[in-house]
Amino acid sequence: MSDTLLTHLTLATMLPGGAPYGLIPDGAIALRNGRIDFAGPAADLPANLAALPARDCGGRLATPSLIDCHTHVVFGGDRAREFEMRQQGASYQDIAKAGGGIVSTVRATRALTEADLLAAALPRVDALIAEGVTAIEVKSGYGLSIADELKMLRAATRIADARPIRVHRSFLGAHAIPPEYAGRPDAYLDEVCLPALMAAHAEGLVDSVDGFCEGIAFSPDQIALVFDRAQALGLPLRLHAEQLSNLGGAALAAQRGALSADHLEYLDGAGIAEMARAGTVAVLLPGAFYTLHETRKPPVEGLRAAGVPMAVATDCNPGTSPMTSILLAMNMAATFFGLTPEEALAGATRHAARALGLTDCGTLAPGMRGDIALWNVGHPAELSYRIGFNPLHTRIFGGTL
Amino acid sequence: MSDTLLTHLTLATMLPGGAPYGLIPDGAIALRNGRIDFAGPAADLPANLAALPARDCGGRLATPSLIDCHTHVVFGGDRAREFEMRQQGASYQDIAKAGGGIVSTVRATRALTEADLLAAALPRVDALIAEGVTAIEVKSGYGLSIADELKMLRAATRIADARPIRVHRSFLGAHAIPPEYAGRPDAYLDEVCLPALMAAHAEGLVDSVDGFCEGIAFSPDQIALVFDRAQALGLPLRLHAEQLSNLGGAALAAQRGALSADHLEYLDGAGIAEMARAGTVAVLLPGAFYTLHETRKPPVEGLRAAGVPMAVATDCNPGTSPMTSILLAMNMAATFFGLTPEEALAGATRHAARALGLTDCGTLAPGMRGDIALWNVGHPAELSYRIGFNPLHTRIFGGTL
Ligand SMILES: [Zn+2]
Ligand SMILES: [Zn+2]
Repeated sequence: MSDTLLTHLTLATMLPGGAPYGLIPDGAIALRNGRIDFAGPAADLPANLAALPARDCGGRLATPSLIDCHTHVVFGGDRAREFEMRQQGASYQDIAKAGGGIVSTVRATRALTEADLLAAALPRVDALIAEGVTAIEVKSGYGLSIADELKMLRAATRIADARPIRVHRSFLGAHAIPPEYAGRPDAYLDEVCLPALMAAHAEGLVDSVDGFCEGIAFSPDQIALVFDRAQALGLPLRLHAEQLSNLGGAALAAQRGALSADHLEYLDGAGIAEMARAGTVAVLLPGAFYTLHETRKPPVEGLRAAGVPMAVATDCNPGTSPMTSILLAMNMAATFFGLTPEEALAGATRHAARALGLTDCGTLAPGMRGDIALWNVGHPAELSYRIGFNPLHTRIFGGTL
Repeated sequence: MSDTLLTHLTLATMLPGGAPYGLIPDGAIALRNGRIDFAGPAADLPANLAALPARDCGGRLATPSLIDCHTHVVFGGDRAREFEMRQQGASYQDIAKAGGGIVSTVRATRALTEADLLAAALPRVDALIAEGVTAIEVKSGYGLSIADELKMLRAATRIADARPIRVHRSFLGAHAIPPEYAGRPDAYLDEVCLPALMAAHAEGLVDSVDGFCEGIAFSPDQIALVFDRAQALGLPLRLHAEQLSNLGGAALAAQRGALSADHLEYLDGAGIAEMARAGTVAVLLPGAFYTLHETRKPPVEGLRAAGVPMAVATDCNPGTSPMTSILLAMNMAATFFGLTPEEALAGATRHAARALGLTDCGTLAPGMRGDIALWNVGHPAELSYRIGFNPLHTRIFGGTL
């Protein structure tokens, strides 16, 4: 981490209120002590910063580095054979009978050690890093026992030791009901989920608390119980809500001041209004929409009109979104959901930061961390226009190239 | 290119008729003089080959290297701003008024030199190479003048000098009617397209002849004229057919013995029957389906039932499929069109080779070129299951690692 002056850049600062993308054509960035000291027109560079060791960036585009604010990258096994069965015409019952579905991921995750879970996650993390990602959210939720939920969160914590990336850990004990508690969700919450949350928090493993509010998972009342405990611990909230049906989960989350409500295909106007009032971020997950052949789209026009910040994430998980490309998530958010390229980029920078409660990244502005991506593109619209192409030139993490 | 024995492999030979994927669990491959001398169970390895210098492949999966049999990777400019306008709600008329559409790519392509066109194509080619692609098809069709069509084909030819990849060049003069011939398609064919084909063939730049048979492009009668000339020159045929409507283009192509008919969303039973009779490959292009928000799918069940070989390709082009990932094309062919993972992999190996008239690659079998991909996956279904992840470990081109 040495102090550097980046010159000959187009900046997409992603600061709102000015030019689209916060675009600055002839820009420069001064990095000092790992932070952005200056980001603006080269002509405005203060004299004291002009003396820093300079690096000519060849006219490239600089954006805030990318943030993937909804992932399940820590898991065991894969579900490729289940994918194959489905493509061969097997029903969900056939797959369940063959041991597939989320249960198979729970089984595989429980079977791995913390070190093995970390090793399994790193190639997925590396794929994100290769696209200029410097912060990811990682959820528990495939352990579903106290020990295995803690193991997942410890593995997630170690990602940040193994790689130059920040990790936000969400406790997702209320993800599914494990087989040994089939039909007894309240007992599961009481005997496993809440004790696991307490233990994980005591060990410093939890940055926020998540849940899956859905007919096949937990009811709003059950989620409310989990949220009660989280709030008693002073932990921020987020929620998988309105993915497959409308249970009012987003409104519940917003009323509790949640950082984000995620998926939202079935979100209604009342939910939008609550989210707008609370400033809860709408996290859009087109990879799951795509993989599940969903046709109902999240209400992007309503969210936009209400001023709800929209983030975009991979939802990387083995069942419904085995996706490890945030650039592709941006392209799909545009193609499937109608986001503009500017909204897609804000969704993987400024708004993704907000979904993680991070106030020190997501834009190019003085005082922010030196988390920056330099791209071989002429215009920021290219970042969501391309499909399956990675134009990253340089990734800067905490001021380090 | 040194003789090598690859040991400790799972082989997906992609040879038909046996196990799915032609799977061989404990396999080995012997490479001699750039070709496959042996590919089969390690236990069956002939004694004389067992003495070759060996490389332990750590239990990885070997497949035939991938083939992208439909691309337009040589072009000038990009259409990101047009994408942005569309996402912002602009109509196609708005975009045309702003100078967008294929005309803008023609303008940008004409403005570049042969060297500049090559330089613009190489990052796209490199993205494909990084996924284990060793052969691509590249079309002309954005020059639309004699000189510019030749320039495109020369740039395509030079890709194979600049990178370790085989290039099949398709003459696509009948791609669109350039502005200077608006309303005069027959004059365009007579004065530009056919003379360009003659000149390109005379220069040895043409491996096959393609056309775009569609209401917005050329009629079957006009395509037939181009095919007449191609056949007089002894050149193989292919055709963009039934993408937006059913004009019977696939049947026309099949009746002429074309290598492939491509897109095929509007293909009917008669077209399927003609393709089956002729052995014409159906090239599926899910990237264009996706980008165009198409809802009509190619008749995969009918093609499957008729035994028409199905290939999968990126259609990499700046307007309707700015995609440079063959793995993603495989995933989309499965997700959108219902291909099985085995069909998707055959579509990017054995059937793609056939679509290019290549008989020396596309399977792992003695006598084939040493064009092999080694993957960090346990099962070949993973190759189309993942979304935006590249598990390539090693790419072998003509026996060279
Ligand atoms: Zn999720
Ligand atoms: Zn095409």
